Formats: sequence, structure tokens, C-alpha cells
Amino acid sequence: MSAVLRSEEDTVGFERLGLIGCGLIGGSFALAMRRAKLARHIVGCSASSVVTERARTLGVIDEAAASAADAVAGCDIVLVAVPVAATESTLLAIEKHLAAGALVMDVGSTKGDVVAAARRVLPPPRLADFVPAHPIAGKEVAGVEHAEASLFDGRQVVLTPLDVTAPASVRRATDVWRAIGSRVVTMTPCAHDSAFAAVSHLPHLLAFAFVNGLAAQPGGAEALAVAGPGFRDFSRIAASNPAIWRDILLANRMQVLAHAQAFRAALLDLEMLIASGDGPALESAIAAARDIRAPWRLGANTPSTD
Amino acid sequence: MSAVLRSEEDTVGFERLGLIGCGLIGGSFALAMRRAKLARHIVGCSASSVVTERARTLGVIDEAAASAADAVAGCDIVLVAVPVAATESTLLAIEKHLAAGALVMDVGSTKGDVVAAARRVLPPPRLADFVPAHPIAGKEVAGVEHAEASLFDGRQVVLTPLDVTAPASVRRATDVWRAIGSRVVTMTPCAHDSAFAAVSHLPHLLAFAFVNGLAAQPGGAEALAVAGPGFRDFSRIAASNPAIWRDILLANRMQVLAHAQAFRAALLDLEMLIASGDGPALESAIAAARDIRAPWRLGANTPSTD
Repeated sequence: MSAVLRSEEDTVGFERLGLIGCGLIGGSFALAMRRAKLARHIVGCSASSVVTERARTLGVIDEAAASAADAVAGCDIVLVAVPVAATESTLLAIEKHLAAGALVMDVGSTKGDVVAAARRVLPPPRLADFVPAHPIAGKEVAGVEHAEASLFDGRQVVLTPLDVTAPASVRRATDVWRAIGSRVVTMTPCAHDSAFAAVSHLPHLLAFAFVNGLAAQPGGAEALAVAGPGFRDFSRIAASNPAIWRDILLANRMQVLAHAQAFRAALLDLEMLIASGDGPALESAIAAARDIRAPWRLGANTPSTD
Repeated sequence: MSAVLRSEEDTVGFERLGLIGCGLIGGSFALAMRRAKLARHIVGCSASSVVTERARTLGVIDEAAASAADAVAGCDIVLVAVPVAATESTLLAIEKHLAAGALVMDVGSTKGDVVAAARRVLPPPRLADFVPAHPIAGKEVAGVEHAEASLFDGRQVVLTPLDVTAPASVRRATDVWRAIGSRVVTMTPCAHDSAFAAVSHLPHLLAFAFVNGLAAQPGGAEALAVAGPGFRDFSRIAASNPAIWRDILLANRMQVLAHAQAFRAALLDLEMLIASGDGPALESAIAAARDIRAPWRLGANTPSTD
């Protein structure tokens, strides 16, 4: 395994990493690249110069750039790690400053909108080197001070190349993420957005609705006081960042609404079984859910990309 | 704290505990009572004599009884730890064999149905000594072999006395659960069922519907393969026992359906904000959920019963 990693490192080393967005994900990527000795020099910039300076002080980046354009100049690899809604303006700001052949990636949780933005903004040669990426990793807390080199260890990263993305760029992106410990899955942007609408965006939407519905009722506070571990786990994601989730739900709205509709149909089925007191059918329906969920394990089912 | 426990132990010691249902909860109660030196002798029985014998071999009970009636004879404390749907037949089977003044408790997750069953089956003097209890504790796995003395440590137990329950019985029940490490909350059966419909039964229903809705869609398997920690925690309770949850959802159907309706209204509100692309209102709605859920801690808000 380490032999494999070492040989990958040899082939994917970079001279200069340009990091746009020194937050939890961007900062962790920089630290992971540094740990793997994959980037000789790391230049970073954030929307706030205070954050950029903090990233430099913490040793996450080597050099603080004053602008995104400055950060990417002369880089052979660029990571755009900004809120999804800021992707287009960021790509627009850097596109004239990207070196030919530089590998450019983002880390957004939605991909259809990122791909559309890239198509609008990047000229064809740059678009060929753009590989949209979505690392399935994070923390409850944000900010560069929580960044760590091990954030992507053993976690999945979904790459969603465009039809015009160069196969060599996809290979390089795959090598980079593997070399910093991730397992790489490749999907189309559309399949990505549908899958994540189903297993991530919809659960968040349901958790937000669940907590708001609970709060709207008399006795809600008393109920919260006796809630147990089931509530704790089910509703954990309702404590997610509102601005980030506003962007995700809006960016992927068609898929999210389609999955919400399918969910409501499944819920109504169960409600009708409860209302009619149909014990055997209710037990079967619960058993069907149990049979799907019980054997599931985090990351155990990574589809092979080879 | 230990001085308090010791003095409680002195006042709540029992000669003979009758345990009906030697499963995870019943077995753990027996072990906890034994650990606290609160029961001199423990007699148990289960629907299956194999299970009863296993409980005896494991040292959970001292003596295996052939029937529920045999198990409770001569006991000064009885715990009915059977599936909720079996409560009425169990109370019917033991009521003529209960000693005068014996404290009788159940451990069911719903209370309105248990209270109704007790009213139908127990004569007034026995009803005065019946204290319905719901320990908020459990494990992913069932069975007496997973029982442990510490299962109730620091966990909440909700007592739902009837109007005719003797205050002295409620005090004894409170002392017992406190002495084995639990924190006691008292609610009416109706308030209990409404609260647990909101924070336990509804989340289970939503998790079952979510997994079934996901499975019904093309690409469901692919989506499951890339699901992350949010999915893991949100859907964990969808792997719950189908027979137990069939019983709970049916036993508490009016409350569950009412809360499901409130949930659907909250979900539809969010869907409309997404469909209309109203970012500020969507962010506010998510922030409202976040502000309720983020500060919540398991067991931190136990209402005082004193």
C-alpha cells in the first residue's frame, strides 16, 4: 500500500498549489498535500485577508496572496474551496491567470451548478483541465483553525468530469486525492446531484422540517427535554450551517424537490397503514426499510472506478 | 451523591422481584437491582422457557418460573417488560397472583394504551400500586445476553401515574429508578405519548419512509454507496425492530398521525421556499431549526419533578 502511494506521489507532485478559500476543506487539502509532500509551495487567499493571514500563521499556506488572481498565477494545481454560490465569480476572477495545463478543482457539494458555471466562464483549454470534485468529508465546525491533514483519510471523493474534461486531468485528479488518502468515485454531474439529493440534501431538508414542525407545536419544549439518542442522531444535521445549506438546496432544487416528492409518497403510504391499523403490512414496510439500512456501512460500498 | 443513594437504597429495598420478560430491558433492570442490592431474590419468566433458562444461567435471575403467575407470587416488586402489545394479557395473567401492596411497573414506549389496558384488567387496589414507566434507554441489539446493570445509568425514566395511582407508589417507583442510576421525570400518559410521538415515534416513521422512498427510486443503490455520515446518523433508527415499531406506531397512532401532519406542513413550507428560490427566507427557516437543535444536549434539559 505504501509502495503504491509512494509511486503515485512521484507521478503527481506539484510545484505550486494555489488555494482559493482557506476554510476547513481548503485548509485541510493544503495540509494533506503538504503531509504527502505533493506541493512544494502553497499560495492561498480568502475572501477575508484576516483569514488568509491566519492560514499563513498556522502554516497551512506558505504565502498569502492579495487576490484569487495572484494566488493562482504560476500554479500547476489550483483548488477552489469557496461556498458553491461563489464558484462562478471565483472562476471568472482567475481564468485569465491560470497557467496552461494547471489542474483546477473545486470541492462543492453540488455539481450541476458548478459545471454550468465553469462552462459559462472558462475558455475550452481551461475547461479541459477542470475536474469538479466533492470530498465527502467535513466537521461540525468550520474555519481554517480546524483544518487537519487527515480530514480526507479513508473518505470518499466524487469526481464529476465534464464531457470535455481531458482524461489525463481526471487521472491526475484521481491520483492527487488517492495520494492524500481518499477513495475516488467518478460519476456524471447529474448522477452526483441526484444521488446526493437522495442521501444528503433530502435528509437535511427533512431534519430542518422536523425540528421546525416540532418547535411549532405546544409541548415542543417539554418533548425536547425527554428526547433520547434516536432524536439526537436523527436531528444532528438540523444544526448545519444555514447559509451553506440554503445554497445547496437552491443549487440542486430540481433534484431535491423530486426526491422530496418521492419521500412524501412513501410517508403517506406508511401513514395510511397506521391509520387503517394494518399491522402486517406496516411491519413489512418497516422490515423493508430495516433490511436496507441495517447492513449499510459508511464507505463500505464504494463503487469501483477502475 | 453516594450518601443520597445509600439512604434511598435503605428505603426501597425489596425482598423479591418478579420479572416478566427477560429481555434487554427486563434483564438490565434485574442486573441493576442486583448491583444496587435492592432485591434479595429475583424470579423471572419469559414467553420462551429457553430464554428464561438463559437468564438464570447468566445470573440475571435467581429462579426461573414456569409462568407469569408463578413469577409474581409473593413478590413485593414486579416489572412487566414485555412488548407493549402483550401488556394487557400479561396483566390479566398476573393480577390474581399479585401480593397486596406489591409495586408493579411496566417499561413500555407508549403509555396511553398501557394505562387503558391496566384500567380494564387490574382491580382498583392493584391499580393503585401500578406505576407505568418508560426508561429512555436501549441498545441496537436485543436479548438478555446484552443486558447490563449500567443500562439505566444517567438515563431518563418517565413515570406516568394514573389519577388513581397511590402517591406512595409513585414515590417508591421514583426511589427505585433513582437508586439504579436513572433520572426520573413524571408526566401524564397523554403528555408522554404526545412528547414521544414528536421526538421518537415520528422520527422513526420519517426514517422508515426516507429509506423506503430512496429504495423505490432508480439509482438508489448507487446513492447509498456514496452516502456519508449525515445519512448514517439520520437513518440509523430505520434499522429498528419492525415488530416493536409496528406496535408502537399503532398503539400511539392518533398522536403519531397528528405529528406527521404538522411535519408535512413544515416540509411543504420549506419546499415552497426552495421552489420559489427565496434564499433569505430559506436561510431563516434553516437558521430557526439550527438555533433549536444546536444547543440541545441529550438529557441536559430534564424537567425537575421535585
